[in-house]
Amino acid sequence: MSKIAVLGAGSWGTALSIVLADNGHEVCLWSHRKEQAERINSTHKNEKYLADVSLPMNIKAFYNLEEAIKGAAAIVIVVPTKAIREVCQELNQILDKGITIIHASKGIEPGTLKRVSEMVDEELHHFKYEDIVVLSGPSHAEEVALRHPTTVTVAAVNKNKAIHAQDLFINEAFRVYTSSDILGIELGGSLKNIIALGAGISDGLGYGDNAKAALITRGLAEMARLGTKLGADPLSFLGLSGVGDLIVTCTSVHSRNWRAGNLLGKGHDLDDVLNQMGMVVEGVRTVKAAYQFAKEEAVEMPITTGIYQILFENKTPKDIVEQLMGRTKREEMDDIAHLLVERYAK
Amino acid sequence: MSKIAVLGAGSWGTALSIVLADNGHEVCLWSHRKEQAERINSTHKNEKYLADVSLPMNIKAFYNLEEAIKGAAAIVIVVPTKAIREVCQELNQILDKGITIIHASKGIEPGTLKRVSEMVDEELHHFKYEDIVVLSGPSHAEEVALRHPTTVTVAAVNKNKAIHAQDLFINEAFRVYTSSDILGIELGGSLKNIIALGAGISDGLGYGDNAKAALITRGLAEMARLGTKLGADPLSFLGLSGVGDLIVTCTSVHSRNWRAGNLLGKGHDLDDVLNQMGMVVEGVRTVKAAYQFAKEEAVEMPITTGIYQILFENKTPKDIVEQLMGRTKREEMDDIAHLLVERYAK
Repeated sequence: MSKIAVLGAGSWGTALSIVLADNGHEVCLWSHRKEQAERINSTHKNEKYLADVSLPMNIKAFYNLEEAIKGAAAIVIVVPTKAIREVCQELNQILDKGITIIHASKGIEPGTLKRVSEMVDEELHHFKYEDIVVLSGPSHAEEVALRHPTTVTVAAVNKNKAIHAQDLFINEAFRVYTSSDILGIELGGSLKNIIALGAGISDGLGYGDNAKAALITRGLAEMARLGTKLGADPLSFLGLSGVGDLIVTCTSVHSRNWRAGNLLGKGHDLDDVLNQMGMVVEGVRTVKAAYQFAKEEAVEMPITTGIYQILFENKTPKDIVEQLMGRTKREEMDDIAHLLVERYAK
Repeated sequence: MSKIAVLGAGSWGTALSIVLADNGHEVCLWSHRKEQAERINSTHKNEKYLADVSLPMNIKAFYNLEEAIKGAAAIVIVVPTKAIREVCQELNQILDKGITIIHASKGIEPGTLKRVSEMVDEELHHFKYEDIVVLSGPSHAEEVALRHPTTVTVAAVNKNKAIHAQDLFINEAFRVYTSSDILGIELGGSLKNIIALGAGISDGLGYGDNAKAALITRGLAEMARLGTKLGADPLSFLGLSGVGDLIVTCTSVHSRNWRAGNLLGKGHDLDDVLNQMGMVVEGVRTVKAAYQFAKEEAVEMPITTGIYQILFENKTPKDIVEQLMGRTKREEMDDIAHLLVERYAK
């Protein structure tokens, strides 16, 4: 068994700590709030994020980052995307070289269009991009904490690192698959938030399952289109971090992105929605990034474009539905088929 | 505008009649119950199946099959799978040769393992298999009747026939894509019922979204595996009749298959469930067929096999979950990738 540091004591960081602790590891859970770390150690609960769950005794919380990571065989970074660079800058000074770095955060940095692994790579100077691992998949933290069956994918260019992460996490309630396509796995986890906004809009307009299924299916196609253009394997979008995560996010009313979309569908404008939500809606940032990517790469993304127009160009959801339904007649699979033929017919 | 006969006045036949009527066609809706046909004509409603919807005046119901199809440019067969052969035997005597034949029924015939288009082909002697069209996709009839946005696929080996069907149905609320892979489209619509049973079982066990997303994602992979072995294009399983229909069926509590699965997950045995449901549960028949296919073709289908064991071999749902979660560590996409490489890397 190893010592593992989990950085970020939100609900997902806490749930992943439970999985690691169940596997017998010594888990050091780092919080940037001293008071939270102390409460976790005294109550063996994380009251704010997973109130009803008792934490295993081999999880210990830390406020001091250096103490948390001392002697760890691996670190798992689960801080919000906007805090990634800051935490990594701190880590850069104190991290042992041989350690395995796993992250479980989702998002694309506005402006730079960098994925999380790219940000980590830029900030940690003694580590190679090839060695960084992402963990992603359809996984509500609350269900993981209850040991309900869950499946995720770990991906890294360096397959050995992905296998190390798989070995740390896999158990009978938490099944872990490996992949070498970190680009595809990270993009799947990020781009799905756009389609979740769309699913919320559709439900907000009063439409039903048919419209939502169409949106998810066609949304998946355009995620794969963009991802493949950027170098990902189109097959990654068919896996847990693609279609799997997309389904969970689009059909759960607990999703922040779905809720924001729902308000938009009911006629609220973006400022109004963001005020009501009172927190970051990752999908809104991702729409901007994907729209920019799509333009630069000349990729057809009608759903993303439509949602961008609702958010930033004052189009109404009804306009966009008409625009999407009125497109010219076509074959169903022409675009994805071409992607796959290009990739595999060598 | 054409005259179109729709055979079968259940909720789906009625909803498709509305789409055709909205497009200006003269629709002859055939019911095998005289009383139902007369009620539809006197009330312009189909009270039993779509109680709240007023039917357009260009839908006329018929009890006499020969009258219903007289002069029709196309017929749309929407009877239950078990009535397909009987209706086609009657049609065989009276059908004009040039007519376009579209079916919108789902299922695999127990014993023979024939799909609906194969049954139609066997019974209609003056028609070629290549010309038969299937219409399939994520589509609750109630939502179609309300003109909520819906997308479907029409598929036929003979592309011109699929395009004819597309032209008849497409409008601003009902978007129709074409495909030439009738095998893949029909299998997607049938096999998804197995995974819907599984989704119900998972929910019945009290598991959450994570487990269901895993089941849908891995279920999709095994649907594609079997389908490809039987000759379908793996890409069809990524489209509306695959992943799209799968999502609707697995996340809607109105699905008959989900409800049956839910009772199984709560500990009822199959006889008990079928008694409580009081009607055919297509997924139960399909599990048998797929299990038989998988054995004959040596295709690995762990989810289908597990559900078969629950239904027919007295395994408990808990046993099966343990069996599925405990499989050996593996890469996520190895199997589908191989299928695609085999097909496209020529």
